[in-house]
This record gives sequence, C-alpha cells and structure tokens, in this order.
Amino acid sequence: MVVVMSADATEEDISHVVERVESVGGSAFVSKGVVRTIIGLVGDIDSFHGLNLRTMTGVADVHRISDPFKLVSRQHHPDRSTVWVGQGEHRVPIGPDTFTFIAGPCAVETSQQTLEAVEMAKAAGATIMRGGAYKPRTSPYAFQGLGEEGLRILADVRTVTGLPVVTEVVDARDVPVVAEHADMLQIGTRNMANFGLLQAVGDAGKPVLLKRGMTATIEEWLMAAEYIAQRGNLDVVLCERGIRTFEPSTRNTLDISAVPVVQAKSHLPIIVDPSHAAGRKDLVVPLSRAAIAVGADGVIVDVHPNPEQALCDGPQALLGSELRALAQAVRQLPPAVGRIS
Amino acid sequence: MVVVMSADATEEDISHVVERVESVGGSAFVSKGVVRTIIGLVGDIDSFHGLNLRTMTGVADVHRISDPFKLVSRQHHPDRSTVWVGQGEHRVPIGPDTFTFIAGPCAVETSQQTLEAVEMAKAAGATIMRGGAYKPRTSPYAFQGLGEEGLRILADVRTVTGLPVVTEVVDARDVPVVAEHADMLQIGTRNMANFGLLQAVGDAGKPVLLKRGMTATIEEWLMAAEYIAQRGNLDVVLCERGIRTFEPSTRNTLDISAVPVVQAKSHLPIIVDPSHAAGRKDLVVPLSRAAIAVGADGVIVDVHPNPEQALCDGPQALLGSELRALAQAVRQLPPAVGRIS
Amino acid sequence: MVVVMSADATEEDISHVVERVESVGGSAFVSKGVVRTIIGLVGDIDSFHGLNLRTMTGVADVHRISDPFKLVSRQHHPDRSTVWVGQGEHRVPIGPDTFTFIAGPCAVETSQQTLEAVEMAKAAGATIMRGGAYKPRTSPYAFQGLGEEGLRILADVRTVTGLPVVTEVVDARDVPVVAEHADMLQIGTRNMANFGLLQAVGDAGKPVLLKRGMTATIEEWLMAAEYIAQRGNLDVVLCERGIRTFEPSTRNTLDISAVPVVQAKSHLPIIVDPSHAAGRKDLVVPLSRAAIAVGADGVIVDVHPNPEQALCDGPQALLGSELRALAQAVRQLPPAVGRIS
Amino acid sequence: MVVVMSADATEEDISHVVERVESVGGSAFVSKGVVRTIIGLVGDIDSFHGLNLRTMTGVADVHRISDPFKLVSRQHHPDRSTVWVGQGEHRVPIGPDTFTFIAGPCAVETSQQTLEAVEMAKAAGATIMRGGAYKPRTSPYAFQGLGEEGLRILADVRTVTGLPVVTEVVDARDVPVVAEHADMLQIGTRNMANFGLLQAVGDAGKPVLLKRGMTATIEEWLMAAEYIAQRGNLDVVLCERGIRTFEPSTRNTLDISAVPVVQAKSHLPIIVDPSHAAGRKDLVVPLSRAAIAVGADGVIVDVHPNPEQALCDGPQALLGSELRALAQAVRQLPPAVGRIS
Repeated sequence: MVVVMSADATEEDISHVVERVESVGGSAFVSKGVVRTIIGLVGDIDSFHGLNLRTMTGVADVHRISDPFKLVSRQHHPDRSTVWVGQGEHRVPIGPDTFTFIAGPCAVETSQQTLEAVEMAKAAGATIMRGGAYKPRTSPYAFQGLGEEGLRILADVRTVTGLPVVTEVVDARDVPVVAEHADMLQIGTRNMANFGLLQAVGDAGKPVLLKRGMTATIEEWLMAAEYIAQRGNLDVVLCERGIRTFEPSTRNTLDISAVPVVQAKSHLPIIVDPSHAAGRKDLVVPLSRAAIAVGADGVIVDVHPNPEQALCDGPQALLGSELRALAQAVRQLPPAVGRIS
Repeated sequence: MVVVMSADATEEDISHVVERVESVGGSAFVSKGVVRTIIGLVGDIDSFHGLNLRTMTGVADVHRISDPFKLVSRQHHPDRSTVWVGQGEHRVPIGPDTFTFIAGPCAVETSQQTLEAVEMAKAAGATIMRGGAYKPRTSPYAFQGLGEEGLRILADVRTVTGLPVVTEVVDARDVPVVAEHADMLQIGTRNMANFGLLQAVGDAGKPVLLKRGMTATIEEWLMAAEYIAQRGNLDVVLCERGIRTFEPSTRNTLDISAVPVVQAKSHLPIIVDPSHAAGRKDLVVPLSRAAIAVGADGVIVDVHPNPEQALCDGPQALLGSELRALAQAVRQLPPAVGRIS
Repeated sequence: MVVVMSADATEEDISHVVERVESVGGSAFVSKGVVRTIIGLVGDIDSFHGLNLRTMTGVADVHRISDPFKLVSRQHHPDRSTVWVGQGEHRVPIGPDTFTFIAGPCAVETSQQTLEAVEMAKAAGATIMRGGAYKPRTSPYAFQGLGEEGLRILADVRTVTGLPVVTEVVDARDVPVVAEHADMLQIGTRNMANFGLLQAVGDAGKPVLLKRGMTATIEEWLMAAEYIAQRGNLDVVLCERGIRTFEPSTRNTLDISAVPVVQAKSHLPIIVDPSHAAGRKDLVVPLSRAAIAVGADGVIVDVHPNPEQALCDGPQALLGSELRALAQAVRQLPPAVGRIS
Repeated sequence: MVVVMSADATEEDISHVVERVESVGGSAFVSKGVVRTIIGLVGDIDSFHGLNLRTMTGVADVHRISDPFKLVSRQHHPDRSTVWVGQGEHRVPIGPDTFTFIAGPCAVETSQQTLEAVEMAKAAGATIMRGGAYKPRTSPYAFQGLGEEGLRILADVRTVTGLPVVTEVVDARDVPVVAEHADMLQIGTRNMANFGLLQAVGDAGKPVLLKRGMTATIEEWLMAAEYIAQRGNLDVVLCERGIRTFEPSTRNTLDISAVPVVQAKSHLPIIVDPSHAAGRKDLVVPLSRAAIAVGADGVIVDVHPNPEQALCDGPQALLGSELRALAQAVRQLPPAVGRIS
C-alpha cells in the first residue's frame, strides 16, 4: 500500500500516519518529494484496511498495490488448475490442456425439447450439457423456469446421454436441491455479487461455474470466486460472458482480453459464453473461434431444436449449419493452439 | 411492437409473421417501404413476446414501443405516490410534496456509535435513520455486519430517538427477521436483480427502498420495482446512487438526470444517495444541493461520529462542518423549489 | 511516482530501476515489503516519463501520483479565475462570484431565426449568445452550417442585441476568421482531443469555451485545457456536457459531479450544457437547476423560435413556458447558493 | 422510420404528422393500437430528417429503421472489397481472401530505430510498415513526433525494405505532405470524428486506415467512413483498436465482435490493432490469434528494437520471443480459417 499525502500535509500529519501503521505492526517508509510526500506501507494488508487511512488529515489518496484475492491467485499456485465435472467414467476435465465444449438449451421447457437439444449438442461434440431450470428474468411476467421439475428432466437426460449437467441456481434456498441433481452449479451474471449465494454454493460440495457480472471488473469477479474458495471449494470455473458498454449492436461486448488477463492472475480455468455475450446467433461461431484462439479452456453455447418455439433467448440458439460450423471449429482449432479438443 | 423485415424478405416471410401474430389474437399492419417492409403489431404485448418473432426467417429486427412495466408506470396512475415510513406519530412521508432527509452510519458497529451517529443526523434535520446490519462486501475478508444483533441496536436507537429505521436485507432468508425490526427494507445496488429477494420483500408487508443497480438502465430498475409491486407491495421508493462509467475521479457517476426521467415514467418516489455515488465526503454537500434542485424527493447520506474508526466507507461519512452545511441546504433549498423540507 | 516491482523481481532488477531514476537526477526510495518491493521516485516527473520504467524487467506497475497538468491546476493558483467575454461595456464575467446564462440557437440558419432566438434568450436573462456557424455532424448528409455567412449573421445580431458571441470552430484553418467575428471560441466535444485545433485557439487571442469530450476523463479534459494554456491563453472556460454511458434514456449522462471535482483541481471556471447532455427539452430546466445548485459558474442552453423548423437538434430547444421556468431558476436560485445572477 | 405517438395524442396530432410526411413526398401508414398509435413512414429517409418529427405535439418517439450510411454499406455492394496499398510490385492487398500483417514502431524516432524495427517486422512476416511521424499526445509536454523529417525517414526505409508505409495524419493542413510520402493515410482514434480531416483524406487520392474512435459506436464509425467515401475515396480500411469501458486491467477493451458485425454491414475490409487495445505486450499475441480466428482481414502491431528506449508506448511494443510467437500465429492460423497468410 502507498499513502499519498496532500501538498499541504504537515509533518504532524505524516507522523500520525506512520504511528497508526505501526500501531498494527506495520512498517512505514516515508519518501519526501518536491511537492508531496508518499509513504510506503509494509506488513499485513488486511490490518491496514481497518485503519481508514484515507480519512486521516493530510492524506490525499491511498493506492493498493497487491491483488486483494488470495486463494484463487496464481501467486502462490503458479500451475493452472483443472476442474473435473461429473462422476465416474463420465468425468470431464476443464483446464489448461483441453478444450471443453458445453452446450444445451437456454431453458429446460419439456423432456423432449431438452433431450433433442442435448443430443444435437452431443452430436456436435459437446461433453457437458447446460440447461436452465431456474431462470432469472428481467420481467416478472416472463417464463421463470420449471424449477425442480426441470432439474428432474436434466437428470433424466443425463441418464440417456451420459453428459454431466451444469445448471443455474438463483437462490441460496435452492442450493441443496440443485446440488442433488446437477454435476456443476452455475452462478449467473446477475448473481455474481450475491454473496450469500456464493457462500451457499461454496458449501455445496459441487464444482461451480461462475459467470462474470455484466458490469464487474475482473478483480471483482475474482473476489467473487474468492468467496466460494473461502468456504473450501476451489473447483471454480470462470466464464466470461460479455460486459455492458455503450455499443448497441451486440447485447453485451465480449471482453476477449479477459481470458489471458485472468489466466495471468488466477489458476482457475476460464471459458467463454459467446451466445449470451452477443445475443445473436450469427456471431456465435466467429466468437467461439476467437475464444479458442485466445486460449480459453472451453465454450458454453445455447442450442435449441426449434428456436422459434424457445421460451427464452431463442434468437441466440444455434441450429443446423451453424452448429456444424461450430462443431468443426471445436474439432480443428484447439490442436492448432496446442490443446486436446 | 414493430417488426422490421430484412431487405431480402419474401412475401411468404411477411405472411408468416402476420399469421403468427394473428394466431395469438393480435393484428398486424404491413407498411411496404422502398427498401424494406415494417409490420406494426396491435394487441396484447405479453402474448407477442412468446412468439420469438426475432427468430423468424426474413425478420431483421423487432422494436418494442411500450414500456414493459405496468404497476409502477405513471401511465395509468398519473399522480405521483407518497410512501409512508414508520408507525403512528413517527410516520414520515416520502413523496412529491416534501423533501425527506435520511441519515445514519453506513454500518451499525456498536450501540454507542449508532446512537451518536443518529443523534448527529437528527440534530441536522434527518427524520429517518439508516444503518446497515447486513453488509454486502466485495471482499469475504471485510466486515460483514453484526446481523441480528445490529437489528436490535437499530430498534433500540429508534426507541431513544423516535426515528423510523431503514436497513438493508441481502438474503431472502433474512427478510422475516429484518421486517420484524425495521420500518423500511433496503435492497442494495448489488441485489437489484436478485429476483428472489425482490419477491421476498414484496411479500414482507413493509415499505421498500430500492437502490438502482450500479449498472442497471432505468428501465431495468423499474422492472425490478415491478417485481416487488407484482407481489402486492406498491410502497416502493427508488434510490439513485450512481452508475458505473469510465470516469475514475468519483466511485460512481451520479446520474442526476435519472430523477426527472423516473418521475416522468413512474409514480413512485425517488431519492438520491450522494455518499455512495461519490465515495468522497467533499462532494456530498454539492451533490445533495443538486438533488434537491433537480426535484428529488429526498436524500440519504452516511454520517459517523468518528469516520477514522468506521468499519465501512469511512471516507464518505460526513461530520462537523459538512453536516452543518448539509443541514442548511436541506432547510433552505427545498422551499426554493416548491417543497416542504 | 511509485514503481511497484513484481513478486519475483531480483535485487538486480531493483538496482537497475534505481540507477535509471538517478541517471536523470531523481531520487529513488526503496521499500521492501513481505511480498514485493515498491520504489518511490522524487524529482522532475517529466524526466521520469521518458524512462519507460514500465518496460523494465521486474517492474509490475507504475503509479503516477501527481496531476499531469500544471498551468490550469489549482495547486499553484489557489484562487478560482474569472474569464471575461466581450468588449467594453458588454464584457461579461464567467467565474466564481457570478452565474452566467448563455443561450441561443444550436445552429445559425437565417438572420431572422438567429435574431429571434437571441432576443428570446436575452429576454430570459441571457448575457452571452451562442449559435453555430460550423456544425460537426455525424452524417455527411446533414446540415453542416452556414460557415462564414453564419459568422456575419452572429456579428450583426451582436450589434442589435449587445450580447457577446460564443461560436464553435471545428478546423484549425478556420480559427482566424472565427476569431475575427466571435468573442469566444468554442471547442466542441468531438474536437476536445484535436490537439492541432487546441493549439490554434490557444494562439488566437480570444477566450475559449472547451467542452468535455463525451468520453473523456476529467484528467484528459484538463490536459486539453493545458494544451491551450501552454500557448499562453489562460482564458479557458470548461463546459460539462454529458458523458457516454450505457443508459439510453438520455442522449448522454450529465456528470454533475464533474463540477465540484473540476473546481477542486483547477482554477478555471466551469459551466454546464444541459441541452446537449439530455437531448430532451423536458430535462433542461431541472438539470439547469441542478447545475446552479451544485455550484456551476453558468449554463449554456439551446433556444429556437420554432423548434419544429430547426435544422439541428430541434428536440432539445426550449421555448415558451420552459424558457420562462428557466429564466426564473436563473434569477432565483443563484442567490440561494451565494452567487450574483 | 417509425413514429410512435404518445398515449394521449389526439386525432389531430396524428393528422399533422401524416400531413408533414406527405408534404415531402413520403407515405405514412397509421396503425392504431390499444394504447398508442404508430405511424410507419415510407419514402426518402433524408427528407424525413429535416421534418423534426420528434418535436411535434403528440409524438413520443421516432425510431430509425434503416442504416444511415450508404456508400460503405453492404446492402448495394454485397461483395466484400479489397483495398490495395503501395505501388507496382510492392502492392499489398487487404481484403477477404488474405490476412495482412502490418507492423513497425509506434513513433519514428531515428532512421536507425525505424529501420531496425521495420526489418524485425519484415522478418516476422509483415508486408506493410507502420510508424508515426505526427503523434497526437494527451499531454502537450510529451513527444509529438518528428513531423516531415519522420516522413522522410519512413520513405527511406521503404526504399530499403520495399514495404509500403502507413502513417497517421492529425491535421488537415498536413494531408498533402503526408500523402506525398506515405502509401496509406491513417486516421487515429482521437480524430475519427474530425470531419474536416476525414474530408481532406477523402480528397487525397491515397487509401485510408480509419481507426475506430475509442468511444464510437460501430454506426458512428461507419458514418465516419461514409465521410471519406462521399469524397470519392472508397479505399478505406477499418481498424478496431479497443473501446473505453469500466474495466481497468487493459487500456481499452478490444471489441472483437466488431469484426463480424462490421463485415455483415459494410463491404470495407477490417483489421485489428491489439497493441493499442491492450496497452500491454503480453496480450498482443493472444489477441492477434483471436483476431485471425474471428475473421479479421489483418492486424497492425507495434514493434521496437529496444522498447525501454521508446519515446512512445514502449510497454506495448513486442520484441524477441513474442514477435516470433506472433510470426508463427500469422503463418499458421489464417489457413486454418480459410485465408492466405
């Protein structure tokens, strides 16, 4: 931490800062500049946070130097992690050596629609299925998902297809029932900072897919992962799904740079969701190609056997020729960047 | 709703859209332009949403024309509403005729700190007290609030000061206990789209203070209010607290225009939180003046008897001379814009 | 400046940084933390910029501590400045003691329209007139302004009304002719970082109204003012006119906090343009009230005798009842916040 | 165009709109809904813009349906264009069949530095060289480029290496001299809306590289290209270089989706600048891979023989191992997505 004093700070102001830092066992190095003084702090950063240095007389600014996350940081865990999803012979890795393709319907609507969508996905190369039983919707008048009935459909489709299930949980009260049926719990973009829910999935004993909040910085996102990790669950996969910007031609702006930035800071795997980022099916294939090439550990996409009938996000679901193009990209491109597809 | 066909849409594509609209009882008006055809839809807009028109062949775009919210809209409720907070002789209005000053500590830390802060606030003219017992924090290592013990402190301070209590609830499981102690339930910026929590406070029988998500559009915010209203609770007060932008000199950018924009669209009262928007105490007084002048129905600010000891957001808490300046503004400016202060 | 070394930086890396800093006459203070080392630099900051410290081995980050602007900074010029516009008896101040109301048509279209608009403005209390002869337009097919003919109309209207003229210049080649006719040169939002133009107006010997780039940080804006000041022209008035955000209900988001933030950092006057920020005439009066209350030194608004016929930005031009409401606000509110109106 | 009437619009208001549309030769189709009426306009859209329909009584909103650009649109020019840069045997294509690698120093500093950088670039596979003689800098105290001397250095290096030159022009007055020395004129991000400069390069008879404004929408960017095209110059190559968002870990956020979005709307080629988007050299290789995979027609990157000595943007210049990794990606990946590299 570095404390920047204002130009008119007095010697006494500087001494007060030094004393307060030393009072919690820290050391303070004072550098007097021509215009202003800066004070470098050395010691336990968490203890400094409680000091409210920014409120002290003569203090102009306080710069944090270290990353605030610990368990998910690559600093003390330089090797990138692999998270395994599913049971027994159906276990699927997500990590640095492989490229994992996750697909399925945005929402579980019926047994038949879910099975058809997942069989399309599997035929295209997907090894984990997605599908929403609990849907967070902007409008209280929109389809909110089938709930527990949807979970049972997903479990049935897993029995038929063998693909492990990732599905979203939106309320801490639902975590036990979702964890009972699913292989991986998804935290959606709107809940990335729902800290009670993060702690609940941290306690649930299943891997977690943590989507980036659509307006969260990468640091805030890694802090959300830290909430889960702090409960003893390090099986967290991050998912970049677009951030909110001023550009209206896509629903969100896919922050493709987030993939290498996260990989430099954290050991956790990171995948990309091009469907929700773009909100347009014509962009899903090119953005998936970009995700593979930039080094993502996987992609997650929406497919639907009949998008015109979809109860949720039909415009972004792939079908037919697009899905074949995606299948081809997922087969051919990862080896070109050194991964097993 | 207006459907815009692509330039290469066929007559058959157009007919399909018209048929689908008519299949749910709507009417479709076709306007053929030089380059493209547009189709105006008339009927029940909710039934149109399920049609997935955007996925149909030949459809380039679908424009929504009406606002998606209903119960909170001013369209069928032209008079702006007043929400009453507290019981009996201590009831306080928030609405179009008055200007309501809410103040208190960011977090409840101890009985004494809370009482001192609320007495400072009351002396400066505040008529409702704020204070957090459950704190959503970006870091799992930061102070998370006293929980139920904090609620009891707030209730005790209410007994002493007579000021009704508004406090945040962050988890649907906590709504009953918070509703038991508080007079108004606050939904914080990170939970604006936590729909399960919105429904829970909608059922709780107490007025709600709904902060804007730091990255929510005004329409999304009003849809969040609609979630509460849909459970039968129309006692919702909106609170503008800054949005996330690229400007780093303030923690968030106070969207002062949101006040008249919301007042034109919704009958619900709207107040401003300059403390959390700016994150700097030197801006609280000028931004509070701006809030009064733009026509807000109130402000909510952080005060602390000793900001240097605050466990949360010390840098933005007012004290001494600033609080006196704010008290003066709250007394003098509302009458200059036609309100009782 | 503070150099933050990476966790794996060697002693040699640290020595290299120290040597390089000392090679340009600076001093380097090394603080070794538990995890990483930070180095505080003292000396001439401009010489440090050329060192490319960020590219050196072992350097993780470089934090700038001081503001990069000098001439426009309040640090060595604590009193806020007043800029005078116009000649002789018609000179009008813009500064900390007064509130200046500038109004006129967005674009000069005809002599009559301009005169009518300016007389409306004057009757409402305006003391400086605005009007565009050169219009930067997003579309090459839109009305681009009357050019020099427009300048002559503005000068004629000044003769009739006595109001000094502020008008935009969009090309460095036009600066001499605009400076010949106008009393104040406006740099529009799209040209805030057109450095050649900034230097040209810096040389022109007339006061400058510098609008904020719609996506510029406050620091970048003050650096643009520094470009003008560096040519010897300190008669610069800043104008906040909204920034680009994700919120679609207003054309831009008025950053009302920019007023006190700028006033804390710079001695230059700052005014607000609510018309271009909102792009909606129903918001101009409430936002003008907010501007006065927050402490702005003036406002600049669009008026048009017949907005339905306007060639530019008709939807935001005030007329009739709105202009009377604004006139009243401009008369009554400034005294309530300690200014002469 | 679609005009949306407000809920309380009268029959007379509707008639006025219809009459005004018809007065310029357009047709108006009226669709009366349950709550409000919408009017579809058919005819010459440019004539409708002058009508100021948004200012008319009873009009709630006006939605534009068609794209506002024409010459650069793919609508009447479905085949994607190829732009050729340079003379004779050294002509290099930028377009849909090839992948073009442009590289060189951010700024021209000396003959030797420029030659070394360009030889590095050529060895890595670059076929066009970049280098700045005129540098737009945020600070008036920063290195502003060598000007005409820099142009001569670039021309000399072209003689030695055979690579055509792209260089930035920042002032309309400099266009003739830059066009005399360079093979392609670059418009930088800060000048994307400098309309006089756009027109000047439109008249200069050389291909143009048009960078996206860091806060421009894709539509505004294509309108800027339209300004150039309207002067008769269709040899415009677009360059995505990152947009301004709230995410601080990269200098800008590379909007990778812009590539397929632009390719769907416009026939112009589009390339990517990962160096300026990220501002960090460790991201240049992964982002270049993503650019190739998403379908970009080329990349432009900064290289410097000695980044620690660079006068501009040293931290993002590639060297050694990174440049070799980039050279490999540029050789191997384009064929995997169907292009000649």
